[in-house]
Amino acid sequence: MSDRSVFFISDGTGITAETFGNSILAQFAIKPRHVRRPFIDTVDKAHQVVREINHVAEREGKRPIVFMTLVNEEALEIIRGCQGKVFDMIKTFVEPLETEFNMKSNHRVGRFSDVAVDREYNDRIEAINFSMEHDDGQSSRNLEMADVVLVGVSRSGKTPTSLYLAMQHGVKAANVPLIPEDFDRGFLPPMLKPFKKKCFGLTIEPHRLSEIRNERRPGSKYASLENCRYEVQQAEAMMRREGIAWLSSTHKSIEEIATTILRDVKPDRLIY
Amino acid sequence: MSDRSVFFISDGTGITAETFGNSILAQFAIKPRHVRRPFIDTVDKAHQVVREINHVAEREGKRPIVFMTLVNEEALEIIRGCQGKVFDMIKTFVEPLETEFNMKSNHRVGRFSDVAVDREYNDRIEAINFSMEHDDGQSSRNLEMADVVLVGVSRSGKTPTSLYLAMQHGVKAANVPLIPEDFDRGFLPPMLKPFKKKCFGLTIEPHRLSEIRNERRPGSKYASLENCRYEVQQAEAMMRREGIAWLSSTHKSIEEIATTILRDVKPDRLIY
Repeated sequence: MSDRSVFFISDGTGITAETFGNSILAQFAIKPRHVRRPFIDTVDKAHQVVREINHVAEREGKRPIVFMTLVNEEALEIIRGCQGKVFDMIKTFVEPLETEFNMKSNHRVGRFSDVAVDREYNDRIEAINFSMEHDDGQSSRNLEMADVVLVGVSRSGKTPTSLYLAMQHGVKAANVPLIPEDFDRGFLPPMLKPFKKKCFGLTIEPHRLSEIRNERRPGSKYASLENCRYEVQQAEAMMRREGIAWLSSTHKSIEEIATTILRDVKPDRLIY
Repeated sequence: MSDRSVFFISDGTGITAETFGNSILAQFAIKPRHVRRPFIDTVDKAHQVVREINHVAEREGKRPIVFMTLVNEEALEIIRGCQGKVFDMIKTFVEPLETEFNMKSNHRVGRFSDVAVDREYNDRIEAINFSMEHDDGQSSRNLEMADVVLVGVSRSGKTPTSLYLAMQHGVKAANVPLIPEDFDRGFLPPMLKPFKKKCFGLTIEPHRLSEIRNERRPGSKYASLENCRYEVQQAEAMMRREGIAWLSSTHKSIEEIATTILRDVKPDRLIY
């Protein structure tokens, strides 16, 4: 079997249902068709989704998989009556936890209440702004406020990693490139001097770097394998000399890089 | 009861375990202490985590909650033997799905295999780069390649939303500010003319806007309530005139804004 429709139903954004549902589905050799139905927060909307699921079930001759993160009891009951195979992602874990904690759950919808007054949320936005302003060594202003400073050659993955650290974890991540002038001088960029302890390096295989750079500036010296080899070798030698921990981004996702950095640097201000 | 230690254990980054675990815990009036243990991919590391859990259980006199997303059977068994209350987030859903699909799961670790050769992943990085280059109306180059173009007054939430759309969904999101000169002229910024169909507006309550701007430039005309009122009123009138859909970011999280935009704009290139 190869195809199956999968519904992600939520009274919030459905991001949790979908992210987690995808991890589960990744355990199977199937190619599901995704149907997202966020903001299902009324009985009417629940009925409408059920009609849709039943229609798909009949059309495809296979019952759709339904991952749901709903808190509203009425809506829940309605969805449960559909012709799909329903997984109640909240209740499955909330019920045993009610026993464990010896308390009732509060049926709170979504992870976000009112963002305008949410301190944690505002910190996260501030971290994104900080990371944007300190992308690519743009500014040494307030660098003392950074939780972490990523360093590495151009196109080694610093920018996406900085943004991810800010967005997912509320971590203020600056990034500063290591460029040929730094290698000629033989020193770290001077703006980094006071912050060496917060620095974390990214490196990358020269072949992969050359590929990435060639997409940007095809045939340039900048993208040539020879130059990429030189820059990577120089950058690694510099980081080793300066005692900066680093990892290779070549075969790692942003998420894996970010998790490793947080595990090693352990900034105090981690947000959850 | 108020405190309880919660372990998030994964053979990957643990982001799924933690994001999902947080949604579950948000249903209870407790303030848990988070302990992240990513990359638990060997028997030795599993034993080490078990020792840690048991130590915490004894110290706190309450058994810790353990959310785990492990695929390795040996490691799984070891963690199950700990003194915590263990929730196996994968198996709970994978087992009934094995029955449903009539196939065995493949025990794949994590959502990311080798990113260097993963097309989807590279599209996501490309979307982040695109959104960075098209932040704040910086460039009208390649704007035809944008999936969505966010418009709105300065500090209405365009930048974080663009970056989130790129990072989470692989959507190329440009953003262009509406500034006093546009209001004087009475037209959308000319670069937007050919792309009106892809435009989506963000607006914000003038009071909240004034607060946000005052953090940046305290006491400025730019941040004054009077000016914020004027800009917001002008921007909304312009979007209404031009037939651009919009929403207010005041009480919404980035995630909620992004989900609404995707539901309404439905770009073809959504990545999962």
